[in-house]
Amino acid sequence: MKEKSIFHRCRLLISCSDQPGIVASVSEFLHNYGANIVQSDQYSTDPEGGTFFMRVEFDLYDATIPIEKVEKAFHTIAQKFQMDWRMETESKRKKMAIFVSKEDHCLLELLWRWRSGEIDVDIPVVISNHPTLQDVVKSYGIDFYHIPITKDTKLEKEKETIQLLHEYDIDFIVLARYMQILSSQFVSAFKHRIINIHHSFLPAFIGANPYQKAFDRGVKLIGATAHYVTDDLDEGPIIEQEVLRVNHRYSVNELKSVGKNVEKIALARAVEWHVSDKILVFENKTVVFE
Amino acid sequence: MKEKSIFHRCRLLISCSDQPGIVASVSEFLHNYGANIVQSDQYSTDPEGGTFFMRVEFDLYDATIPIEKVEKAFHTIAQKFQMDWRMETESKRKKMAIFVSKEDHCLLELLWRWRSGEIDVDIPVVISNHPTLQDVVKSYGIDFYHIPITKDTKLEKEKETIQLLHEYDIDFIVLARYMQILSSQFVSAFKHRIINIHHSFLPAFIGANPYQKAFDRGVKLIGATAHYVTDDLDEGPIIEQEVLRVNHRYSVNELKSVGKNVEKIALARAVEWHVSDKILVFENKTVVFE
Amino acid sequence: MKEKSIFHRCRLLISCSDQPGIVASVSEFLHNYGANIVQSDQYSTDPEGGTFFMRVEFDLYDATIPIEKVEKAFHTIAQKFQMDWRMETESKRKKMAIFVSKEDHCLLELLWRWRSGEIDVDIPVVISNHPTLQDVVKSYGIDFYHIPITKDTKLEKEKETIQLLHEYDIDFIVLARYMQILSSQFVSAFKHRIINIHHSFLPAFIGANPYQKAFDRGVKLIGATAHYVTDDLDEGPIIEQEVLRVNHRYSVNELKSVGKNVEKIALARAVEWHVSDKILVFENKTVVFE
Amino acid sequence: MKEKSIFHRCRLLISCSDQPGIVASVSEFLHNYGANIVQSDQYSTDPEGGTFFMRVEFDLYDATIPIEKVEKAFHTIAQKFQMDWRMETESKRKKMAIFVSKEDHCLLELLWRWRSGEIDVDIPVVISNHPTLQDVVKSYGIDFYHIPITKDTKLEKEKETIQLLHEYDIDFIVLARYMQILSSQFVSAFKHRIINIHHSFLPAFIGANPYQKAFDRGVKLIGATAHYVTDDLDEGPIIEQEVLRVNHRYSVNELKSVGKNVEKIALARAVEWHVSDKILVFENKTVVFE
Repeated sequence: MKEKSIFHRCRLLISCSDQPGIVASVSEFLHNYGANIVQSDQYSTDPEGGTFFMRVEFDLYDATIPIEKVEKAFHTIAQKFQMDWRMETESKRKKMAIFVSKEDHCLLELLWRWRSGEIDVDIPVVISNHPTLQDVVKSYGIDFYHIPITKDTKLEKEKETIQLLHEYDIDFIVLARYMQILSSQFVSAFKHRIINIHHSFLPAFIGANPYQKAFDRGVKLIGATAHYVTDDLDEGPIIEQEVLRVNHRYSVNELKSVGKNVEKIALARAVEWHVSDKILVFENKTVVFE
Repeated sequence: MKEKSIFHRCRLLISCSDQPGIVASVSEFLHNYGANIVQSDQYSTDPEGGTFFMRVEFDLYDATIPIEKVEKAFHTIAQKFQMDWRMETESKRKKMAIFVSKEDHCLLELLWRWRSGEIDVDIPVVISNHPTLQDVVKSYGIDFYHIPITKDTKLEKEKETIQLLHEYDIDFIVLARYMQILSSQFVSAFKHRIINIHHSFLPAFIGANPYQKAFDRGVKLIGATAHYVTDDLDEGPIIEQEVLRVNHRYSVNELKSVGKNVEKIALARAVEWHVSDKILVFENKTVVFE
Repeated sequence: MKEKSIFHRCRLLISCSDQPGIVASVSEFLHNYGANIVQSDQYSTDPEGGTFFMRVEFDLYDATIPIEKVEKAFHTIAQKFQMDWRMETESKRKKMAIFVSKEDHCLLELLWRWRSGEIDVDIPVVISNHPTLQDVVKSYGIDFYHIPITKDTKLEKEKETIQLLHEYDIDFIVLARYMQILSSQFVSAFKHRIINIHHSFLPAFIGANPYQKAFDRGVKLIGATAHYVTDDLDEGPIIEQEVLRVNHRYSVNELKSVGKNVEKIALARAVEWHVSDKILVFENKTVVFE
Repeated sequence: MKEKSIFHRCRLLISCSDQPGIVASVSEFLHNYGANIVQSDQYSTDPEGGTFFMRVEFDLYDATIPIEKVEKAFHTIAQKFQMDWRMETESKRKKMAIFVSKEDHCLLELLWRWRSGEIDVDIPVVISNHPTLQDVVKSYGIDFYHIPITKDTKLEKEKETIQLLHEYDIDFIVLARYMQILSSQFVSAFKHRIINIHHSFLPAFIGANPYQKAFDRGVKLIGATAHYVTDDLDEGPIIEQEVLRVNHRYSVNELKSVGKNVEKIALARAVEWHVSDKILVFENKTVVFE
């Protein structure tokens, strides 16, 4: 039964105008390479004339076929259907940088899930505008850079940071309660590759002090939202949201305290999905193939 | 063991400046009338100088003591602590009017919970600006009035409606997807006695078409909010909120459809709490003693 | 853009041994008939040698091709991969019978979702061992049969019932708190076509009086389980489960009362999935392609 | 306003037969000592002849009155109503020992909440039958003992462990996935003072390998249960339960992996409530005054 051994577990991500024949072409293509489709998800905004999204997870068995050859061959199909597409291999792990400030709950959740194998990623570097979390980061064998940012030094420090990220060959960034607003230049250098956790149920309580605002409004549930960062503050594509029941007895500080638990859960899920190539962005929204 | 039989199950609701001795005075008072406290809840915004809220549920056994006498006697304590207060008896059921439009899900949920005994209330009348739900309402033995409202006839029709509500001796009103904005005059005639269900997780998506807005924003959870109506649209004190997980596959119509299930749940809970005198309003927020 | 109009929205359900080429063959087959795949889900217990499950939803545009012809043609592929399979058309609605006893909450939830269009099914008949719910059923224009069952008359009455179900051409049965145990003969006549709602979080509290057992054990969450009926009481394949937070203050009667809300939600979801052919049964478990 | 400063925040826990006058006596007693009641909860299994439970949180302002004096004075009231009772001061933090095996998720959650101040407790010592987690424990400045246990050495090693716990003056023990069954002697030495986390939704899947059993049964929700340890395995009073939605795609290992997230949440909540004296045990059930 087990005579075959997997050479590559791969993921193919596609978006294009919906039209008959896409699934047939893709699956025939993969079959011709002896691949076995282990998971396939698709979604169309409208079967007639809408946009089509697809994520196929497949196993390649033949070690003599380099993945690059498969990728190159796929160009013909991609061209025919005018696809936006990419092919990823599970064995090539993404490189993730984490930006933090002083709060450690989101950082620790990511590090714990990383070490336990729940998040299959490399974390070569953590960057912070405060030295607070240096020791804990280093105890995980991860490099830590303290890059303080002021209004005046912002652009310069951001350039330095981008340089550093390139040196580490970083694929994407997680803002784990970083508390700094990134410049438009920075954001465009990592388009749809920066994940932020906002400590409210967006679009409620945009901006600063969401727990104070939630307290003032007297809401009965508080929330957290993981989203891709765009130029518009807290307006980027939402990846995941989570909520928690509260009541009139919670002070602002208690909301902050229990809110940490939903923040870290929503962020960790978003990171896991990004790492597994389960998210496609379309018109400021996300398609998540869980 | 069961030689005593309850004459009155009562509820005492209090709010005043927090100060030592309130609980002692109230419980001693009740003890002197042979009452047994079966449930007691309290909350203070700040033990030193804040506002104190209390809800006491107690049983009176002595049938020879009229509840009015207990109420009158309590005035002395109320005056000493400068309390806002009221005493309610479970046997005197509140009279609730339901306002509907064309949608039936919230109405049916309330009627079902009423008939099954979950909501201990009288429902003498349902009022609507459409005749759509007349038959179902009448099948429950409840009077139905079709009072269509246009911009021009609004104030006149509202007067007529208030007159009708007084004839039915209505204590409070539930807007079960009524879809009309009540005038300031109407609202002030039933201050903190009108419960509305808004089909979003407030303060997100205030105003019209919240499901369309939720779809456009790409949220991963949709919600519903039951609140007391004030002059500011969707800004009144929140009583209860509920959410439901959705994803990119949901069209606006599907959001509307599944959203009905959270709307009716949040509204039914809010009505149950109001009926059981579990809600105190304070500075545009609610204290809910569940 | 919209020049094509759908003739048939169809669903193809497949299970077979996993092997390369299934998806390619199926999608090529559908493409050859001019079909557009609008949704496709698959699952394999093990990519190498496991069992493969697939649900494909597709649109046929050509009104000149009868669905029977497509079905017949598919036999060749089915044979090649030794598939268990069936093809359903959305336009051919399933016929559902509801069995009830005295409790109305599950029945009313189903009827409400049916009338509002959430559950796309025909409900020609409701059967009960009590006359209690006759009027409400008839008010929905649905036939009602009162078939009381005693130990002695059980087999005879069941035969009569099966006869009746065949007359109504019933596809599947929902036990909406029916409270009777069906005989082995009856169950085998509708294999994986009888859905029951058990008022506990199975496998906890199997059998009678689950709320009493939940109370005695002091659980902090109560649940409900919708499952296909098999010969082993409460042991059939689980379709859906839902829970609700409770605490020490809930009496057995209050657990029963709030439990109704999870029962009806879990059952309604299970029925919706069954009606939409989203459930495949495998080794006493379900694969649900939500 | 703030001229008073709190000398002691105290908690009074009471259980006795329900009878009129308890609340009045307790609140009058506290008022006589100039105490302000900041939170009060009560529950009765039956107002006529049942058991009454109460938790009062109060502030003492007068630094000249030692808490011991208040405690001593309360004996009179306690005797009158034949109360089981205890008085705790917030300033006297409990001492908690954690028992672990190789898994770190529950341990880390407790340590993180402890360091962030969410759990107001002292943790002088962690004990394990494996050396695996020694380094991480010591990095928090906590003593770690590796006490391996075999069938033959069990009683001897348990004695040694109890001795150690007494040396550290331990108030209660948390089994954070300890994976060993404690002897009856051990359990009785810490009655209702050992909290265990069981990785299932009890009473479903008692005993070993609950995730395997959950997988085999095909449940749609998995759970975790925090409970006090008694002689009957997994049968002790339930403190808290939490669940998580899963589906057919989860392998046993994936259930184990995501299950960790509910285990740590349920356990952490139970520990917080125990630490804050919010739990009363009664007839193998808990009254939790959240």
